[in-house]
Amino acid sequence: MRLIVQKYGGTSVGNIQRIKEVAKKIIASKKNGVSIVVVVSAMAGETDKLIELAHQISPDPDKRAMDLLLSSGERISCSLLTLAIEQLGFKAVSFTGRQVGILTDSNHTKARIKKVEAFKIHQALKDGLIVIVAGFQGIDEKDNVTTLGRGGSDTSAVALAAALKADACEIYSDVDGVFTTDPNIVFCARKLNKISYEEMMEMSSLGAKVLQIRSVQFAKKYKVPLLVKSSFKNVKGTLVTEEDSEMEEVVVSGITYDKDQAKISIIGVPDKPGIASKIFTAVANNNIVIDMIIQNISHEGLTDISFTLPRIETKKGMELLKTLNKKIGAKEVRLDKNMSKISIVGAGMRSHSGIAAKMFSVLAKENINIMMISTSEIKISCVIDEKYTELAVRILHKAFSLEKKR
Amino acid sequence: MRLIVQKYGGTSVGNIQRIKEVAKKIIASKKNGVSIVVVVSAMAGETDKLIELAHQISPDPDKRAMDLLLSSGERISCSLLTLAIEQLGFKAVSFTGRQVGILTDSNHTKARIKKVEAFKIHQALKDGLIVIVAGFQGIDEKDNVTTLGRGGSDTSAVALAAALKADACEIYSDVDGVFTTDPNIVFCARKLNKISYEEMMEMSSLGAKVLQIRSVQFAKKYKVPLLVKSSFKNVKGTLVTEEDSEMEEVVVSGITYDKDQAKISIIGVPDKPGIASKIFTAVANNNIVIDMIIQNISHEGLTDISFTLPRIETKKGMELLKTLNKKIGAKEVRLDKNMSKISIVGAGMRSHSGIAAKMFSVLAKENINIMMISTSEIKISCVIDEKYTELAVRILHKAFSLEKKR
Repeated sequence: MRLIVQKYGGTSVGNIQRIKEVAKKIIASKKNGVSIVVVVSAMAGETDKLIELAHQISPDPDKRAMDLLLSSGERISCSLLTLAIEQLGFKAVSFTGRQVGILTDSNHTKARIKKVEAFKIHQALKDGLIVIVAGFQGIDEKDNVTTLGRGGSDTSAVALAAALKADACEIYSDVDGVFTTDPNIVFCARKLNKISYEEMMEMSSLGAKVLQIRSVQFAKKYKVPLLVKSSFKNVKGTLVTEEDSEMEEVVVSGITYDKDQAKISIIGVPDKPGIASKIFTAVANNNIVIDMIIQNISHEGLTDISFTLPRIETKKGMELLKTLNKKIGAKEVRLDKNMSKISIVGAGMRSHSGIAAKMFSVLAKENINIMMISTSEIKISCVIDEKYTELAVRILHKAFSLEKKR
Repeated sequence: MRLIVQKYGGTSVGNIQRIKEVAKKIIASKKNGVSIVVVVSAMAGETDKLIELAHQISPDPDKRAMDLLLSSGERISCSLLTLAIEQLGFKAVSFTGRQVGILTDSNHTKARIKKVEAFKIHQALKDGLIVIVAGFQGIDEKDNVTTLGRGGSDTSAVALAAALKADACEIYSDVDGVFTTDPNIVFCARKLNKISYEEMMEMSSLGAKVLQIRSVQFAKKYKVPLLVKSSFKNVKGTLVTEEDSEMEEVVVSGITYDKDQAKISIIGVPDKPGIASKIFTAVANNNIVIDMIIQNISHEGLTDISFTLPRIETKKGMELLKTLNKKIGAKEVRLDKNMSKISIVGAGMRSHSGIAAKMFSVLAKENINIMMISTSEIKISCVIDEKYTELAVRILHKAFSLEKKR
């Protein structure tokens, strides 16, 4: 019998009425004669509510206790969904992450799955039950409850699909699929029918918040086809799968942006070996996650180093750099607070040239200054002034003809 | 080092402010140089909220799923209390019922504790940590999450105190202790300094909702002294402990009542062997919990059988009895819907006579008709018309001089 893993996000189970709707959807799939394992997120807003309670107590709460706290949200939605299915006359069983053997490392609040022992699920499926699993959570080897970070239920679903060798993993949420870009900015943004794991990973890491990036890595590793669909509308979604020749023909699949960037520049750094290492070791030790780094060509023994970081880290970053500035004998630390990162992603870039040049010229034509550039095999990112974000996305979308059906 | 188990009820941790207050109380105890294990209930209203959600889905929800649902309330309060203690600079660790090895039978929503393996607590106490445990929950031998029924956190606390051989078990809630009767009815009701396990059990089963009766049974079995105290006021509570000679001198310790009773009478039952068994087997099979039973003396081969049941079960009970009535050839089934049970409890009854007679004459003096009587070694209960409840409690409280300090 075909086995499908379905994952329902927080808005899909946001209230009792929606939970009942999801139960009907699950039963419809079951009636098609497939075995079904469902992974469920906490009801929309629940996790934030729990975090808010914790922050009323402590600005920096203990992470082990936080995980015990946060894991309860999915237990609630998972139990309620089970009840809703049974109320419709079908047999279901609810399990926590621990009960289905999701074993993680001990990195509380952002643990990584190490192993999945799905023994109980196999048994329940054999008994003909619909299996409902609390997403986002697992247990470490010392029996502590762990959680997998924002969007972690995606990864729970993919990991279970991999362990169970499921025929498909369907991710249901409040979006219709993966789009060429944000439809709120570009009216004619088009839903993609298919996208490769690599492209999806670039899209995820660049801010298209459809899937937790870790879940895509997992899906790629274990070759789990992911279908991203709306749980509210009955429309075709986007299949995330292995790259094929069809995808290679598409030069640019999508355009993403991240508006919450800032740039810090250290001006007049003595260009000696070990200086960059000193700066970025200090930055890492302070848990500031940075993105792009640029080091200018040296003039008269002095160079400039710039890097981007999430805007929320600006204060922490500037305090650190000002201290560091004195130690390394640099001239000045400058902050550009309102930066944005625009990226074009496409598997076809591997076999097509001139894409970067086209991107730069499109931006130049509108007098948008590019401050930093970074590239990978299937992605080109430019840092620009935040105020040009929407404009840049629109002109790039048009220039690469993304609105056209293929 | 002295080891104390403290249990905090739902109102004691009803909001973030109260959780912070409880954290301070716990730390104050810790500073006295004792080891502390805390058992915590769900925040007031949380369990009801979860039940309400489940009932929006199903009138009769699956009990296994309910247990997974309900157990999350205590995980939340337990995590938050841990954070509050750490915020005050003390080290604490949170555990679920399963993590501290509370093993129960599989009777979902009202499981009974079979065994407690407190290994992790021993280790944490050795490390100098304050241990916070989610009450009300355990796990059965098949790894299913179970809950212990209303007030189950009391039993969690006592079971842990027994397993850890704690020096004391303190139960903190919104009441100051155990009273001679309901202070809302008798203004001069007096808080008892001490009460025996047996008396407390009678009081609990008769409706004084200070402690879950099962927790008192546990405390008696393992000789755990229970101190019932207010978590809001700094006043002396009530010690529930083994009977001593002092207690025996007190003839009546308290007066309890239960207003939610109804009485069903089956009139003109053929007085043949096996009739009562037939009736009450059917009643039990329909999960109707009955309390008192009276069978009248037979006249001309016919007898009357009456029993009391919770008022909420009236409809179910009457439907069943009307069907049964025809089968056994009885004349009639009668319902008295508004009944109340008044009881006097006291260890001293064992060694004093005439107590029952005094109770009956006190009620008779006010023309309160006694419909049924039941007695145990340390308790006498009378069923009366509900409208006389408060009057009966007051005159009995006075007659047995319960307002006087001893």
